[in-house]
Amino acid sequence: MTTTLPPIPSGDTSDDAANAANASGPISANDGGAGDPTESHLHIEDESRIDVAALTRVLDGRWGEMREWGREIAGDPTFARPVDMTMDDHRELTLKRLKELAKRNWSAQMLPEHLGGSNNPGANLAAFEELVAGDPSLQIKAGVQFGLFASAILHLGTEEHHKKWMDDTMSVKLPGVYAMTEIGHGSDVSAVGTTATYDEGTQEFVIHTPFRAATKEFLGNAALHGHAAVVFAQLITKGVNHGVHCFFVPIREDGELLPGVSSEDDGEKGGLNGIDNGRLAFNHVRIPRTNLLNRYGDVAPDGTYSSDIASPGRRFFTMLTTLVQGRVSLSGAATNAAKLALGIAITYGSQRRQFADFTGINEVVLLDYQLHQKRLFPLLARTYASAFAQEDLLTAFDEVFSGEGDTEENRIDLETMAAAIKPSSTWLALETIQACREACGGAGYMAENRLVGLHQDLDIYATFEGDNHVLLQLVSKRLLGEYANSLKGMDAGDVTKFVASRAETISTRHTPWRRLLQSASDLGSVRRTAASLRDPDLQLELISSRAQSLVEELSLSLRQASSMSKEDAAALVNSHQAELIDAAKAHVDVILLTAFNNGLKKIEDDETRAVLVRLRDLFALTTIQKQLAWYLMHGHLSLGRARTLDDYIARLLTKIRPHALDLVAAFGYTRDHWRAPISSGLERTRQNEAADYYRRLRASNDGPIDEKVLHRRQEEQRKAEERRREKSAG
Amino acid sequence: MTTTLPPIPSGDTSDDAANAANASGPISANDGGAGDPTESHLHIEDESRIDVAALTRVLDGRWGEMREWGREIAGDPTFARPVDMTMDDHRELTLKRLKELAKRNWSAQMLPEHLGGSNNPGANLAAFEELVAGDPSLQIKAGVQFGLFASAILHLGTEEHHKKWMDDTMSVKLPGVYAMTEIGHGSDVSAVGTTATYDEGTQEFVIHTPFRAATKEFLGNAALHGHAAVVFAQLITKGVNHGVHCFFVPIREDGELLPGVSSEDDGEKGGLNGIDNGRLAFNHVRIPRTNLLNRYGDVAPDGTYSSDIASPGRRFFTMLTTLVQGRVSLSGAATNAAKLALGIAITYGSQRRQFADFTGINEVVLLDYQLHQKRLFPLLARTYASAFAQEDLLTAFDEVFSGEGDTEENRIDLETMAAAIKPSSTWLALETIQACREACGGAGYMAENRLVGLHQDLDIYATFEGDNHVLLQLVSKRLLGEYANSLKGMDAGDVTKFVASRAETISTRHTPWRRLLQSASDLGSVRRTAASLRDPDLQLELISSRAQSLVEELSLSLRQASSMSKEDAAALVNSHQAELIDAAKAHVDVILLTAFNNGLKKIEDDETRAVLVRLRDLFALTTIQKQLAWYLMHGHLSLGRARTLDDYIARLLTKIRPHALDLVAAFGYTRDHWRAPISSGLERTRQNEAADYYRRLRASNDGPIDEKVLHRRQEEQRKAEERRREKSAG
Repeated sequence: MTTTLPPIPSGDTSDDAANAANASGPISANDGGAGDPTESHLHIEDESRIDVAALTRVLDGRWGEMREWGREIAGDPTFARPVDMTMDDHRELTLKRLKELAKRNWSAQMLPEHLGGSNNPGANLAAFEELVAGDPSLQIKAGVQFGLFASAILHLGTEEHHKKWMDDTMSVKLPGVYAMTEIGHGSDVSAVGTTATYDEGTQEFVIHTPFRAATKEFLGNAALHGHAAVVFAQLITKGVNHGVHCFFVPIREDGELLPGVSSEDDGEKGGLNGIDNGRLAFNHVRIPRTNLLNRYGDVAPDGTYSSDIASPGRRFFTMLTTLVQGRVSLSGAATNAAKLALGIAITYGSQRRQFADFTGINEVVLLDYQLHQKRLFPLLARTYASAFAQEDLLTAFDEVFSGEGDTEENRIDLETMAAAIKPSSTWLALETIQACREACGGAGYMAENRLVGLHQDLDIYATFEGDNHVLLQLVSKRLLGEYANSLKGMDAGDVTKFVASRAETISTRHTPWRRLLQSASDLGSVRRTAASLRDPDLQLELISSRAQSLVEELSLSLRQASSMSKEDAAALVNSHQAELIDAAKAHVDVILLTAFNNGLKKIEDDETRAVLVRLRDLFALTTIQKQLAWYLMHGHLSLGRARTLDDYIARLLTKIRPHALDLVAAFGYTRDHWRAPISSGLERTRQNEAADYYRRLRASNDGPIDEKVLHRRQEEQRKAEERRREKSAG
Repeated sequence: MTTTLPPIPSGDTSDDAANAANASGPISANDGGAGDPTESHLHIEDESRIDVAALTRVLDGRWGEMREWGREIAGDPTFARPVDMTMDDHRELTLKRLKELAKRNWSAQMLPEHLGGSNNPGANLAAFEELVAGDPSLQIKAGVQFGLFASAILHLGTEEHHKKWMDDTMSVKLPGVYAMTEIGHGSDVSAVGTTATYDEGTQEFVIHTPFRAATKEFLGNAALHGHAAVVFAQLITKGVNHGVHCFFVPIREDGELLPGVSSEDDGEKGGLNGIDNGRLAFNHVRIPRTNLLNRYGDVAPDGTYSSDIASPGRRFFTMLTTLVQGRVSLSGAATNAAKLALGIAITYGSQRRQFADFTGINEVVLLDYQLHQKRLFPLLARTYASAFAQEDLLTAFDEVFSGEGDTEENRIDLETMAAAIKPSSTWLALETIQACREACGGAGYMAENRLVGLHQDLDIYATFEGDNHVLLQLVSKRLLGEYANSLKGMDAGDVTKFVASRAETISTRHTPWRRLLQSASDLGSVRRTAASLRDPDLQLELISSRAQSLVEELSLSLRQASSMSKEDAAALVNSHQAELIDAAKAHVDVILLTAFNNGLKKIEDDETRAVLVRLRDLFALTTIQKQLAWYLMHGHLSLGRARTLDDYIARLLTKIRPHALDLVAAFGYTRDHWRAPISSGLERTRQNEAADYYRRLRASNDGPIDEKVLHRRQEEQRKAEERRREKSAG
């Protein structure tokens, strides 16, 4: 395997790929002495052992080779996130690195065969997702260039455009800007103010920023490096506004802005400072008519507008479909960031000792503290769930974007899945990184230990490529629509069954485990008969039934909106906005649990699966625990059963403890990716050195004696003296 | 009022102080057009108006003048956090600023009269807490110099030490290091490895780092600026280790490290990069005997050790008391950081428009969305609670440190209060800043808008000066101890009463509202008879009873530990560690609610109080909501009442909405402190400009017509044509 050419994915996980994965070195629990769980003070009840390499193969999934390739590049110090570098230097470095990636044919898989690619969009994103372990700035810079700029030309343009610009775009000879967002409109793209007015006289479009809020904002490559921009603007011809279209607009030549184009630098950001984000405004900038990326709508030389898609709304939606690529890939990158953080914190936690144990001599390893386990393991469990769900999402993406299954229904489903999973994984990443940073104490705050930098870079993932809250509302609206449709022309019994299977249907459309849940009545019986909260059917039933109920309740609450004035209807919907979010989040939990259950089936090794089942239980039970009040109020759990939940979870923590290092090793990241001194083994060496020092001191006779011990001895001597005196007196 | 000399606090909130506070300019809701709530689309049910200046006076409390002075300095651009500055430059700037602060007599209040101060430790911290609004790096650098280094000399040293070093320390001619933490021991100070061995021959102490893990770590001023360090080391003389003591050790002369001293630079951190944190190690460094800070323990020239405190444990505890100052002041600073973030996000949310409203023309202000309110207002409510609690904590601190009430009992109570409140306020700050950053979308990620920088700097507050989780365990242990003591020699009825009042007693020891709760039976009747969840007695009863129950349950669970082997006892305690944290957090909630209720009594204006009562309700009800499952499982709330909670909270959000800008204005911060373009009014100007553009477009006849509208018109024309034809045919 070379780092220069990406492997052509074979579409399966052959043994060769697996061996390669194994050889390139995810450390096992016993490597480097980091993970000998026998050092733990806790009694280890569980003798199962994880087959780390096999588990990595399962996690890596269909595009395992590409993930390996991505991790190889990300683990190369050449691509590591710099520490204490000025913004200016970091930006130049990132551009240089992007060009280096291009030399290695980065993102070639996204292209169709006739443009020199392999038409493997899923493979392309799989590698992209791993790049976060190098420098997230490089990842996002690559995302801007290939995922947004090149993708817009590819998907919204036609053959002439591809010929003219794709080669230079893929080689980064032509760094580009994706100019969609405006200052005044972050998430509401249909309302952008920029205009592209057709001038029949010159056969040109005039690109214009009519007011300051219409300035394009937060654009990567805008401040410095971009030579051209794909600009989203209202297409106006013959006095009619045909809605938002995309235009190729040159912005710089020889490093100078072209006439009419102005740019402002966004300057320092919370993170991702290797990217030159900035603003672009246009003052009547003229471009040739043929610079309209005209796949979905075109203007003839005489100004006549035409489109294959009659409805302006559907046309707009179709053009925005490229955005889903960003959501899918950020979701995967975020999950990987959580994996990295957990790798660092769990490794450190298994070496770092703090406070004396019951012997008063040895100190306890952090990870043996229940609290430490409780802070990290539920996040580890959700990260596994998220990783399994990501594979399903990527599969759905590949189906649509490769053209294999590019139907409107699949596109809508893909949009919904991405809108559901991206918020979950990006928030999971932030929560996990922060928990890991705090779990590493002051050491976690040192930039060299990576966690603070990861948080800084990943922070924006929660609000870009679709603000998480906005995306979740889209999901809920989809669920409500599905629910309303499902009720039409059904009798009551049908309705019940249908409702029960909705969440699952959407989440599993692209998977073989479709319709795992059979009907509402089956579910009810599961609830009644399940012996234990660790019964996977009961877990799924509880989590699904909540998701379903929330949609039903919302539907009921909003029922009257259609018969109200617009104002009253808006107020009604607004008063249930928080519930819309709850319903969507509940739906995500169903997707994640279903994906986890499905992932378990792919694990062949019994011992490995046994450990993963516990992790799944931990995920399901902590998810239920967070909503325990809801389950009690709605009678889905009895008080008695609810009271057992804490104990169940506490026991799971101790059972997962011996496998924690294997579980993070299976993510496929090594010390080359963590690049954190605290998880390098240094901490263990220092702790051993200290322990040796004290051992020698205790063994020698000339070490100082503790004042407390002296007091005790003096007291004993005094008493002995007293007794002697009493004896001799008596 | 001048910025050069700190005002001598009058100890009350006189009208003059209040007027001064008002004059220096907290903006009111109607200033600058930022806050006209009539622009909201929501119907405003509530006509109460907040007296902003009066509310600021109440919040500022006893040391209002000092807070004003601190805010004046923090709002001065000279002290603003720099954006995109290299670490090296930021460090030099911060040292320069620290010297400038010293010129203005910063921290003079901490000194007793004979050293040129006013012995007003509370006043000193009040100003310190406000400095976070300038640059947190400067605040913490000042904290290292005055709060740690100078305080150690002051409180652990004696007259000779004061004479020799205090002047140069206070003027920053002698920048110092507080060398307590070691790599191997973050929170477990008693276990530090550094030794200070007395050599009778030369009458010197030999300071030594016996192994790498004993290297002093994370020390401000250690990498570059420190001339001397106060070093915590095991004092060994005549073969006896008398435990940790503090030594004054010169480390640099003319910028060069002294022989035997080595230093490493911690480099870039997650934030606070204006401070030169680093490591210090000592290789048999000799210092004069008299450099032992000998207030609590001394060594005679012949090596004989003496101390007024016989017990080594108590002696150690006494020496550590200075640490509480850091916890108290960081807690206040964190609460202020939350205030700043809320000021920025709520102002922006009241100006920023996104997505069209029901008219399809205007866009809705973010803060009118229920979701936006739900994301921010509960945090606003808790920030108020935290601010009120901080005033009580500071009062308790002042009592002990001014010497007015320096009893052992008060010291222990102060330690417990600080250990309880500091975790709450530092986590609140991080949660609030992150919520505000996300609520501001991409704009929130721009460094110029402050929120990301605040998060970066405040992040470490959660784990330094006592890791939050470690502190909470101390609180629980104290509560368990109190509980056990309370049961000795009581009959069953007494026990019940006592238990019921414990949490309150500790939280209110220093306040006039002691023993608000009378007895368990009273509480029970409140629960039965309260008509509404907005009944403040019921709220307090619910939150207190949970805190009490958790301690009782823990006590029961751990009862057998004393009769177990050490190993089994350690395992038992470990298996309840998460519950220890829960119990401590529940206790904090009682403290905060009690402080909020007490704060309400200080508000004289009825309308202001009416609004604050709603905010208190929001705090109490969202606090109860977070633990709703517990209340249901323990029968403290009926299912019926629990189901009303969401509605109560939703209604409170809309009632607080019209006052949101006043509520953040009352914090006393202005645009000078926020320094965020998004909350400067710029956003509103841009939005108005855009609205004007569209208004002109609609008014003019030559603006482009929307394709959708065109389709509709064409359809109408077609139908009209059809009707005409039908008519003429008919």
